[in-house]
Amino acid sequence: MSERPLILVSNDDGITSKGIRVLVNVMKKLGEVIVVAPDSPQSGMGHAITIGETLRLEEEEIFDDVQAYKSSGTPADCVKLAKHYVLKDRKVDLVVSGINHGSNTSISVLYSGTMSAAIEGALEGYPSIGFSLCDYSSKADFSHVEEYVYKIAKQVLDHGIPKGVALNVNFPPKRNEDIKGVKICRQAHAKWQEEFSERFDPNGRKYFWMAGNFVNFDKGEDNDEWAIANNYVSIVPCQYDLTAHHAINQMNEDWNWEELS
Amino acid sequence: MSERPLILVSNDDGITSKGIRVLVNVMKKLGEVIVVAPDSPQSGMGHAITIGETLRLEEEEIFDDVQAYKSSGTPADCVKLAKHYVLKDRKVDLVVSGINHGSNTSISVLYSGTMSAAIEGALEGYPSIGFSLCDYSSKADFSHVEEYVYKIAKQVLDHGIPKGVALNVNFPPKRNEDIKGVKICRQAHAKWQEEFSERFDPNGRKYFWMAGNFVNFDKGEDNDEWAIANNYVSIVPCQYDLTAHHAINQMNEDWNWEELS
Repeated sequence: MSERPLILVSNDDGITSKGIRVLVNVMKKLGEVIVVAPDSPQSGMGHAITIGETLRLEEEEIFDDVQAYKSSGTPADCVKLAKHYVLKDRKVDLVVSGINHGSNTSISVLYSGTMSAAIEGALEGYPSIGFSLCDYSSKADFSHVEEYVYKIAKQVLDHGIPKGVALNVNFPPKRNEDIKGVKICRQAHAKWQEEFSERFDPNGRKYFWMAGNFVNFDKGEDNDEWAIANNYVSIVPCQYDLTAHHAINQMNEDWNWEELS
Repeated sequence: MSERPLILVSNDDGITSKGIRVLVNVMKKLGEVIVVAPDSPQSGMGHAITIGETLRLEEEEIFDDVQAYKSSGTPADCVKLAKHYVLKDRKVDLVVSGINHGSNTSISVLYSGTMSAAIEGALEGYPSIGFSLCDYSSKADFSHVEEYVYKIAKQVLDHGIPKGVALNVNFPPKRNEDIKGVKICRQAHAKWQEEFSERFDPNGRKYFWMAGNFVNFDKGEDNDEWAIANNYVSIVPCQYDLTAHHAINQMNEDWNWEELS
C-alpha cells in the first residue's frame, strides 16, 4: 500500500477526452491515481445508472504509469464499479471528475454527468470534486486552469470539506486577462429554455434536435454565474439531500388535512 | 380552451406500463390530461437529457379520450418536449409522473427517472408530483393508492405547493392492513450498497450485472423510509438548488486562502 493519497478519476466526456488527460496529469503530482471512466461520451446523463442492462469494464493502457479502466456505464456507474470492484476495500482519499468540456454552473448541475460522478463519490463518504471548463470545444485550452485544479485538490486533501458534500468547480474560459481568484458560491437561479428543431429523415419520418438557451434570473453576486462572468473560479458545495425543508411546515399549514385522511 | 385544469402526465416505465394507466385514469377526474411519456422503460435514468442525438415524438392512441405522445427521450426530455413543442403557450396547472413500479424513497430520488420528470416540471414553475409504489412488479396492485393519488393531486391543485418544489410521493405496497394516512417527510439518510455479479459472454468476454442492497442509516421517525415501513404515504418536498449552504462558511473558514490566491 502506498502512503500517497489514493485519487479516483472519472469524467463524462469519455476516457479519451483531453479534459481527463489534463486532470490525470495534475493528480499524479498529488497521489496515486486510478482512472475508471466511460468508454464513450456521456454528457447530459445526469445521475443515470445502468439497471436492466449489462456493464463492461476493461483495463486500458492509455495514461503513463496510471492504472486505468474504461466502462460502458455512466459516470455514476464508473464510481460504483471503482469502489466495489476495482478498489474493493482500499480507502479512497479523493474522487475527482472532469475536466468537463463545457460549463456545469447553476442548474446544469442537475444534468451533469461530471457532477454525478462527484456526487456519487460524496455518497460513498469520499471528498469529491467535479471540475468543468466553460468552453465546449474538444480542443479547449486548459493551460490557465491546471494550477487551480492542483491548488483546489490540495486544499481538499489538506483541509477537507464537510461530509456528504461534493464541490462543483467551474473555470472561466481562457481570456486575455488572468483568472482573478477563487470564490465559494451558491448555485445561481437560472434555467435552460429549450427549442426543438423539427426535421424529417430520408423516410419522411419526423425527428427533433433539442437546443437550449441559458436564461439567468439571478441578480446576486454570490453565485457561480456571476463568478464565471467576472473571471473567477466558482466553487459550489453541493449536497444530495434534496429535501426542501422550508416546504414541510408550509404544506402542513396550508393543506386541508381532513380531506387527506 | 377548457376551464378544467390542464394536467401533464409522464413517467419512466414507459407509456405502456400499468402505473401510467392508473395515473391517467385518476387524473381524468381532475382535469384535461395530456400524456408525453417514454416509448420504452427508462428506469434509473436520473436527470438525463438527450444531447448529441435526435429525438422522436409520435402521437399514440393508447388512452381513451386522452391526447398522448410517446418519445424516444428520457422523462426529462418528455417534459421539455411537452412544454416547448406539444403545449407551446398553454398554461400547465399540474405535472404528474408515475405511478412508478418501485420505490423512490430516500437517496433513490437521485437516480429516479420518475422524479426527474417532476423536478423538470418544478423547474418550469409548475406544481409537480412524482408518484411511486414500493412494489417493483409490472403487475403491481395499485387499488389501495388510487384514492390517495386523487386526494394529493387535488390538494396541490386547490392549495398549491411552494414555488420550485416537486413532491416525491411514495406509497406502501398493498398489505393486509389499510394505509394509515399521509406524512410530509424529509429524505431518509440511506444509500445503495452495490454488488457486481461478474459473468462471461459466449465469446469469453467479461461483463457485469449491477445489483444493490439498500442500507438505511436513519433512526428518525420524520423521514420517508420510516413512513413507508409504518404503512403511511410519504411526501418529501424536493428542491433543485443543490447548494450546501452550511458548507460555504465552513470552507471559507477552514481553507487556506493565501495558498489559493
